[in-house]
Amino acid sequence: MAAPPRDVDARTVDLQRPATQIILKTHTEPSNDLAMERRKATFDVQELSYVLNGGKEQLEKKMKLAEMLSNTSWGDKSRRYFLTREEEYVGALKAALGIWEKMKSESLSLSDGALMRTLVDFPGGLELHIGMFIPSILSQGSAEQQAKWMPLCMGLKIIGTYAQTELGHGTFVRGLETTATYDKQTQEFVVHSPTLTATKWWPGGLGKTSTHAIVMARLMLPDGAGGVRDHGPHGFVVQIRAMDSHLPLPGVTIGDIGPKFGFGGVDNGFMSFDHLRIPRDAMLMRFSQVTPEGVYVPPPPSNSKASYATMVFVRADIVKNSGSVLARAVTIATRYAAVRRQTAPGPGQRELQVLDYQNCAATLLPLLASAYALTFMGEDMMTMYKKFEADRDAGRFEGLPELHALSSGLKALCTWAAADGIEECRRTCGGHGYSRLSGLPTLFASYVQNVTWEGDNNVLCLQTARFLIKALAGVQAGKRVDGSAAYLNDAAAELAPGRRCAAAGEACWLRPEVAAAALRHAAARSCATAAETLAAASGGRLVFEGAPWNSNTVDSIRAAKAHCSLVLHATFLDSVARLEAGAGAININTSTAAAVPTSAAAGGGGAGAAGPRLGGAAAGVLRQLAALYALDTLERGGGLAVLLEDGYMSAVQAGALRRAHRGLLAALRPNAVALVDAFAFPDYLLHSALGRQDGDVYRGLLDMARGSPLNDTEEGPAWAEVLRPVLAARSRM
Amino acid sequence: MAAPPRDVDARTVDLQRPATQIILKTHTEPSNDLAMERRKATFDVQELSYVLNGGKEQLEKKMKLAEMLSNTSWGDKSRRYFLTREEEYVGALKAALGIWEKMKSESLSLSDGALMRTLVDFPGGLELHIGMFIPSILSQGSAEQQAKWMPLCMGLKIIGTYAQTELGHGTFVRGLETTATYDKQTQEFVVHSPTLTATKWWPGGLGKTSTHAIVMARLMLPDGAGGVRDHGPHGFVVQIRAMDSHLPLPGVTIGDIGPKFGFGGVDNGFMSFDHLRIPRDAMLMRFSQVTPEGVYVPPPPSNSKASYATMVFVRADIVKNSGSVLARAVTIATRYAAVRRQTAPGPGQRELQVLDYQNCAATLLPLLASAYALTFMGEDMMTMYKKFEADRDAGRFEGLPELHALSSGLKALCTWAAADGIEECRRTCGGHGYSRLSGLPTLFASYVQNVTWEGDNNVLCLQTARFLIKALAGVQAGKRVDGSAAYLNDAAAELAPGRRCAAAGEACWLRPEVAAAALRHAAARSCATAAETLAAASGGRLVFEGAPWNSNTVDSIRAAKAHCSLVLHATFLDSVARLEAGAGAININTSTAAAVPTSAAAGGGGAGAAGPRLGGAAAGVLRQLAALYALDTLERGGGLAVLLEDGYMSAVQAGALRRAHRGLLAALRPNAVALVDAFAFPDYLLHSALGRQDGDVYRGLLDMARGSPLNDTEEGPAWAEVLRPVLAARSRM
Repeated sequence: MAAPPRDVDARTVDLQRPATQIILKTHTEPSNDLAMERRKATFDVQELSYVLNGGKEQLEKKMKLAEMLSNTSWGDKSRRYFLTREEEYVGALKAALGIWEKMKSESLSLSDGALMRTLVDFPGGLELHIGMFIPSILSQGSAEQQAKWMPLCMGLKIIGTYAQTELGHGTFVRGLETTATYDKQTQEFVVHSPTLTATKWWPGGLGKTSTHAIVMARLMLPDGAGGVRDHGPHGFVVQIRAMDSHLPLPGVTIGDIGPKFGFGGVDNGFMSFDHLRIPRDAMLMRFSQVTPEGVYVPPPPSNSKASYATMVFVRADIVKNSGSVLARAVTIATRYAAVRRQTAPGPGQRELQVLDYQNCAATLLPLLASAYALTFMGEDMMTMYKKFEADRDAGRFEGLPELHALSSGLKALCTWAAADGIEECRRTCGGHGYSRLSGLPTLFASYVQNVTWEGDNNVLCLQTARFLIKALAGVQAGKRVDGSAAYLNDAAAELAPGRRCAAAGEACWLRPEVAAAALRHAAARSCATAAETLAAASGGRLVFEGAPWNSNTVDSIRAAKAHCSLVLHATFLDSVARLEAGAGAININTSTAAAVPTSAAAGGGGAGAAGPRLGGAAAGVLRQLAALYALDTLERGGGLAVLLEDGYMSAVQAGALRRAHRGLLAALRPNAVALVDAFAFPDYLLHSALGRQDGDVYRGLLDMARGSPLNDTEEGPAWAEVLRPVLAARSRM
Repeated sequence: MAAPPRDVDARTVDLQRPATQIILKTHTEPSNDLAMERRKATFDVQELSYVLNGGKEQLEKKMKLAEMLSNTSWGDKSRRYFLTREEEYVGALKAALGIWEKMKSESLSLSDGALMRTLVDFPGGLELHIGMFIPSILSQGSAEQQAKWMPLCMGLKIIGTYAQTELGHGTFVRGLETTATYDKQTQEFVVHSPTLTATKWWPGGLGKTSTHAIVMARLMLPDGAGGVRDHGPHGFVVQIRAMDSHLPLPGVTIGDIGPKFGFGGVDNGFMSFDHLRIPRDAMLMRFSQVTPEGVYVPPPPSNSKASYATMVFVRADIVKNSGSVLARAVTIATRYAAVRRQTAPGPGQRELQVLDYQNCAATLLPLLASAYALTFMGEDMMTMYKKFEADRDAGRFEGLPELHALSSGLKALCTWAAADGIEECRRTCGGHGYSRLSGLPTLFASYVQNVTWEGDNNVLCLQTARFLIKALAGVQAGKRVDGSAAYLNDAAAELAPGRRCAAAGEACWLRPEVAAAALRHAAARSCATAAETLAAASGGRLVFEGAPWNSNTVDSIRAAKAHCSLVLHATFLDSVARLEAGAGAININTSTAAAVPTSAAAGGGGAGAAGPRLGGAAAGVLRQLAALYALDTLERGGGLAVLLEDGYMSAVQAGALRRAHRGLLAALRPNAVALVDAFAFPDYLLHSALGRQDGDVYRGLLDMARGSPLNDTEEGPAWAEVLRPVLAARSRM
């Protein structure tokens, strides 16, 4: 590899006469730009960092772990962007095993393990063993099953995955085709794939890693009349590979499904069964059982409701992650926009920082607001989950429909916001954003599957909308609704013709209650519109299925989005107030799964406790961000058209809203870098030439590019065989 | 590799008793679904295919070439999604050389070569030799320079690239730092990189392939007073590698910049110079020259205007390509949405085709309309380019500002539409859209750089907006404006308080003039708003630079988008009318660069000529698509809020517009597959398991997945070294 270009001083190298008045040296000082930005901060960044990172101790642990991981062979990222798919697969497994080993050898907590996985950021063949196989056995296995399988799982004597989706069947679980038919003679189930579309498809770690799988299959039992009865999908623990040779067992066909957009380290797999026999006790039997005689013992009636716990938990986790991931993208893009300079206003003038162009700020600052909003929402959903657990244990399920609807819509809205936001961040980085060395292409390609898995976002929004339309109809029939949709109780007054927005002038729009009222009105109106179009399509009644429902999904999805935006804004403000009151810290880094309870991190969490507390200056800036979140949602999210159309808002008010929005961009601009610094993502996590904390982006790009495998030789891999025969000319021309 | 799962008949394989009433076999008949869709078409698909593909002969040639290419070693795509970066680089070069050789050996035209490159779809190290190096020598080289370099270029005795952008300098060409300083003693230029940020960065083919480059460097000449004068960036033909060893020449440092989001086959490179000496005649001297004495001979005054030709041409090419690429994505997503079935309305019922969900149609059908709109726009821009050439040759440049502004905005709007549209298509495909085997991740990752290169889209929109705001100010001062912005001549009447939309009822919105009037009003209002906010920021005047301009870019970009949407809709309708009148065919496949002139393809092109003519049925469907394009632009593009805010449209009219939009979705639904079939992309080009013409998507996925390199062994690449040591248990449990 050639020596790098030297960063020589222009004044010493030019031919005979210096030309210092001409050569632009501004681009060699990006670090100065970042230092300048940091001096502009109007609040204590470290204090906010503590609040966002679970306190000082947790933050320091994060930094220490990042340092430790960067020095391991399996945690080193220097070749991360240069790996072949096979290298990614092996590398990701090594990383997961390295973390597993480190947790054992140093007796680290599950929380530390989750934090390490976040930092290493290299999903691989063990993801579903940790995230689905073990939790499923714990939640759905009987005591004997747990006693049998858990030691094998925790000792890594087996590796498991979770095989539900099939080649032809995704979101609609009832459509699964794989069967598990009970054979009373041998007391075995016969697992079988009756068609090509029954082939299991997508499970992570299935392709080449897992020895076992929880297989979702239709339970087929004797119906007592000489036939077979279908009891619908149930889970079975199935060994799929021989332990000594790692070859698929007879009757099992397994393979990798090929490359995806991202997730190269994961061996998502396919699997089909040809009458594979498994013992009766392979069925997960905590809730429903099959007796040796082949008689079905159904789950207790409350079980279907109780099983929502996992779903709510997973969605809370996804929402929390959405905030963290978006925060990473915004950190990279904001730091780079502060040091990247493009276009001089006039001859001899310095080129402007890209962040000083209004359209760049208008992209990045609302995304920054969104990253905070999503982070707070994720924490709040964890609280909802805990409340649900308590209610469930007390046998109370009244709040379940609302929780189900809300968690559905929030999963959708937050993953859309993060996925689209990463790509928007990438585009603000110009050409260099297209380089994988920026970190953003990989982040996007890995993240974007979140809009599809765990329920396609559109399908989830429709579930939220169904609840909202029903709730509104209920209110009109005299029933009250609680929780996030309680505002619908006042829908009649809210949507009465004379209702008007109270904003008088630009400054009014900065008041949280004015913005909240506008979001609330937009949500109520959107919900009413969806109900009206459904009624029109249903011939006056409300038909929540078939053609009427399917011809109303555009308006329904809008209603769900408007509802969830309202919730996000309210949660943003509530969270700031709570943190300012000293309610403890939150933790942006780890999934809720393994997060240290906020009360522990905050040393009790009550007012006056020793933990981090959000200061007034930072709280004020966060409230500006919340205002920007609201106004941007109205301005760009379509709310404005709704509010103008129904007469709630006037043209004058719309103009004032726009000015307030632009004003917030200018007001927040000086704190942009400070607000991303507060997330405190170590360079090791970001692994981005453009997002470096020191701002030395151009040297960063060059340093990383040198490692490209194409640079292993000066001539490149095509010279000898391909190029030399063509380039017949042999001498310097 | 294991045998594939068999597509066995469920009735023959189940344990002892059949369970046919339970097992869902619907998913094994996707081809039937596509056949059913094709029977629904209300127009002659082949006829429209001919019109879109340059006529019957051109269409047949495309299919023949695709067949031929699929049978070459270098054109075969079976491993395309499985290649390492190095394999991609070598493979893309081989493909380019294969096409080059085929063109020579079979005396094929440039147009055929371009078509083959489109079909092979594997950009590599020769792209800039063909697309920039040769054209630059032809357009900017003197006669002697062309005589010297062209035979070397065409004989592939050298390979060239175009090195303009630098590590710290993208869109702003005047910021380039590389210098070429004239040394009168030796009559040489000394090419030098004074700083790290002066490093050339991004040129395709620079990393490992090119032997030569056109280097853009600041021309530094003696100023006659003992100093040096900077004459700004000029182009120089520079040999960068030794012909015998392919090693970089002394004084030149070259390397690959590392992996990008897409474009793995291209060796985008970096390069810096340490006082490299090149002869005086290396400077491209067609327009400006340097004498042996070091005296600068400036270009003729009209040259700067004439040089816009290349820019307009490149933008026309980008717009044309945007339509073609979006059409490919929509083809894949629409066919899959027709065969993919999700969620049965009730027990025992067949799951619904995804395309029958309104929200899916509401995503795909507007994108289909957009693909047609972009395709027609690209053809129209080629006409603009030809008119510009004719005007230029006649010394007429009055239309240039408008052409410059329009082509800027259209490049932006069309590449945004295509890039975002591909990703939207991908998401409608659910989980399988995340697989690279769908073709969509690669298409997106390769395409999305178009929003950045050849002028960042936001920057281009600002150029359009600057023109529009100036034009509006001119109109207010009594000057008229021609071309696409002519509607601004009537701005005073259009924006007068009493102006009202004429739409009365849903059906009205289907009339082209009503939709066009609404788009026109939205464009005029957006332009006026941008002008007003600029005036407010400028203290009453219009200051098109510095802080006032930079604080107004959000509104300016909106104005540019609204203007270009208006142009796209008008061009859509004009094109349908022209094609219906028998004005000949267009060609969606090849870049305008190499397209056969439409008049030739259509055999004369006049009414009644032998070429393809658009029939009335197809024209009617295309007019529905144009209507959907307009209404969707208003509904989702923010136009509605503008029109409601200024009182042009009432709430009642907005409701009618929404119903008309939903009605169009339903009306176009039966022709969805026919409208993508009409693009007639061969399976070879799409290389997508989901976009197959025969609809056999699930078998397609499985067949392609089997080729994944992870499937080379049953145990996978981690077994021996990584997994076996961990999985201590040795026997079947």
